[in-house]
Amino acid sequence: MTSTFHPIDPAALERLHAILGEEGLRTDEPARQRYGRDETEDLHFPPQAVALPATPDQVAAVMRLASELRLAVTPRGAGTGLSGGALPVAGGICLSVERLDKIRWIDRRDLSCEAEAGVITGHLQRQVEEQGLFYPPDPASGDTCLLAGNLAEDSAGPHSCKYGTTRRYVLSLEAVLPSGELIRTGARTRKDATGYNLTQLLVGSEGTLAIITAATLRLLPKPATTLVLVIPFPALDAAAAAVEEIFLAGFDPATCELMEAEALRAVGEVMVLPPGLVDQEAMLLVELDGEVADELLERAAAIADLVESLGAGEPLVAQDAAEQRRLWEVRSKIGEAVKHRSVYKEADTVVPRKALADLVRAARRAAADHGLTAICYGHAGDGNLHVNLLRGELPLEEWASRRDAAEEQLFRAVIDLGGTLSGEHGIGWSQKQLLPLAIDPPTLALMRQVKKAFDPLGILNPGKIFPDS
Amino acid sequence: MTSTFHPIDPAALERLHAILGEEGLRTDEPARQRYGRDETEDLHFPPQAVALPATPDQVAAVMRLASELRLAVTPRGAGTGLSGGALPVAGGICLSVERLDKIRWIDRRDLSCEAEAGVITGHLQRQVEEQGLFYPPDPASGDTCLLAGNLAEDSAGPHSCKYGTTRRYVLSLEAVLPSGELIRTGARTRKDATGYNLTQLLVGSEGTLAIITAATLRLLPKPATTLVLVIPFPALDAAAAAVEEIFLAGFDPATCELMEAEALRAVGEVMVLPPGLVDQEAMLLVELDGEVADELLERAAAIADLVESLGAGEPLVAQDAAEQRRLWEVRSKIGEAVKHRSVYKEADTVVPRKALADLVRAARRAAADHGLTAICYGHAGDGNLHVNLLRGELPLEEWASRRDAAEEQLFRAVIDLGGTLSGEHGIGWSQKQLLPLAIDPPTLALMRQVKKAFDPLGILNPGKIFPDS
Repeated sequence: MTSTFHPIDPAALERLHAILGEEGLRTDEPARQRYGRDETEDLHFPPQAVALPATPDQVAAVMRLASELRLAVTPRGAGTGLSGGALPVAGGICLSVERLDKIRWIDRRDLSCEAEAGVITGHLQRQVEEQGLFYPPDPASGDTCLLAGNLAEDSAGPHSCKYGTTRRYVLSLEAVLPSGELIRTGARTRKDATGYNLTQLLVGSEGTLAIITAATLRLLPKPATTLVLVIPFPALDAAAAAVEEIFLAGFDPATCELMEAEALRAVGEVMVLPPGLVDQEAMLLVELDGEVADELLERAAAIADLVESLGAGEPLVAQDAAEQRRLWEVRSKIGEAVKHRSVYKEADTVVPRKALADLVRAARRAAADHGLTAICYGHAGDGNLHVNLLRGELPLEEWASRRDAAEEQLFRAVIDLGGTLSGEHGIGWSQKQLLPLAIDPPTLALMRQVKKAFDPLGILNPGKIFPDS
Repeated sequence: MTSTFHPIDPAALERLHAILGEEGLRTDEPARQRYGRDETEDLHFPPQAVALPATPDQVAAVMRLASELRLAVTPRGAGTGLSGGALPVAGGICLSVERLDKIRWIDRRDLSCEAEAGVITGHLQRQVEEQGLFYPPDPASGDTCLLAGNLAEDSAGPHSCKYGTTRRYVLSLEAVLPSGELIRTGARTRKDATGYNLTQLLVGSEGTLAIITAATLRLLPKPATTLVLVIPFPALDAAAAAVEEIFLAGFDPATCELMEAEALRAVGEVMVLPPGLVDQEAMLLVELDGEVADELLERAAAIADLVESLGAGEPLVAQDAAEQRRLWEVRSKIGEAVKHRSVYKEADTVVPRKALADLVRAARRAAADHGLTAICYGHAGDGNLHVNLLRGELPLEEWASRRDAAEEQLFRAVIDLGGTLSGEHGIGWSQKQLLPLAIDPPTLALMRQVKKAFDPLGILNPGKIFPDS
């Protein structure tokens, strides 16, 4: 792969320097090391140079140069990705958009805003909240990740249950093509049937088609009030049935998160679980939101009745913010809890919602068949569970081979259940060899044609999404 | 345009006949006349042959033949389109998907279904409603239009205000490429970050990239109860302000429809208006939906208070179904009322919601500057108003030139207001020369590259979307 690109020679470096200035170009060893990693396992591909453009025009100038000289360019947000999408696997330039960090405008009356790709997601959320507004996408890395990565991977989090993933909020994009041309997709309107929807094609394209420099986003009014229910279940199937029934009955929860037995046990090792959750087979965390607190209380009581009829234990209910945070902690401690136990690999499985219990069983079987432990938790309302396969005490080589075999077995089962390879983490580098499990040859060939239409020279984020042939 | 395609000679016709059988191929004059029109003004482009495939495999076989012989193919749903997307402007084959009319499955537990592209939208809605489910997209032509056209144009209607347009419900597509290959995009899951989102690119691509043969759709539980408020306003600006405030306050209406003074007068010519609406400058029709009737009543009372503070008259409120239908009639009679007055051209304008009043004023000015009358109404909650320009007593040629000049003036104003060329009707044939107003040259060039990636021979729905150069 690397061989098709030109290395960055001193003349190229000088031209990059002329575009980016002192602050915008780094070739020192610490920078190369840092920008050679993301949060996907222990992978490391240091770039030759790190470009830190401060304006979309600088991005465009870098891409024009890269096109002229055939330099590989790997775009990057905060490097919090979990599928290796930002790893500069072909060397060359790592182009980080972190300095494109302006919120250009927030229009309260119109419930919209425009932000550059280097804005931290959580920062944007707090800025719009100050005006009573709400930007729902809430990946776990919200306090550090950038919009750039969220747009590249169509990121989501617990609230996508009610509010959808990042793409639902994107009205229009400003982006730089591999050729260096600046495009503007979509419009600043809530509906748009004007030409091809390049906006929705670019969202989720993992930085392989264009470098997004800014996004115009739809916002919502911030719901006035929330309520959290944590529901224990003595049986996995009862929890899965409850997920289905809660949606069928029209309760429209803001979040509906599941943790199965092993996930609860793991969290119990790093914090004191509320007594009702000890030794349970599963728990659901349901958040309701709305304008009127009493309506939420009535809805919570109706949900409690419903789940009781399905065999659930007594729900814990929290109305005030501190108590809600305390209940959320059980769910949000899981990442720390898994890391506390062992090195792990996270599979971002997603199935039709009705197949949740089967998914957990398939994960346990795939792990057990290869002598591993599986911990399952995540966004049950979306059928999207993170399956963590744990290394435990295995030596490295054995772990690698067992992990890969278990993961392939798991994803084959996921496909059989009507699911696919990623709900919110993307394919990137780490999942690309599995892609043919989910996508048939003519559809995959068409995706390659689309890639060529945007990037005829193949210089942008090479080596990603498509399996090596 | 026609010159680059081969005509359908007797040998080609014989091969089409072998694929499609007696029932699947028509070349008689009535068929050619009928399939040469849609509902876009008085345009007429009869195809040489009408293909009526009964299976996706037959669609694929027709496209393989068309590729081999370079025959132009124009796909068609029910022909209810309003931008000429289904007109066979290059002659050749009109390929109607009307016989692909199976609902393949409805999965109540999973809140999803799969339907072929020839299913009538309203039929699908009734079938899922029988299971307590809800498919929200509701174009005015719902009782006759096909999913095919809704997918091609990303159709919508009043309920897109709360529920979004067709694309929000599309999980996966089965489609035939111009080459005749069958592809399957997306997955049957509520989240999917697996490869490029071809699903969302195909939705809204107006039949120019592939022929959609089936769609897997997300469904919702049917809301238990609805309530309708009709609110009269003595001033347009007050109505526009009310739209903004209703959303900012978090009322999340299912629909929020506007009719301005001329639209109310026109409807008053074909039915007896409720007394409160006579001589008003605008009315809003707000539908609320939810699970608990009392909650809707409280919300309606709060909305009434809010709009009163902005200068609205006394709202009419309807809880029972018959009374709701009666209020909806004022809005739904507008199409008939405009036709009753005169021949007209409908511009599908869309702007940021806050620019609604300015949009109405711009429409009135564009009409008046060319001696025409404008009638404005539609989906205020989405900033999407249908501006009807009326011919009145003008002779044909003068009407044509004044209409075109007024429309261009209107769309230039729409763009200045941050809007674009179509909210839900598409660009098709009738708006394509305006496209450069909304889309800059590099973005348009990229769209042409995308078209080439799907359709290198240019045989599928030629002459649409892109302006003649």
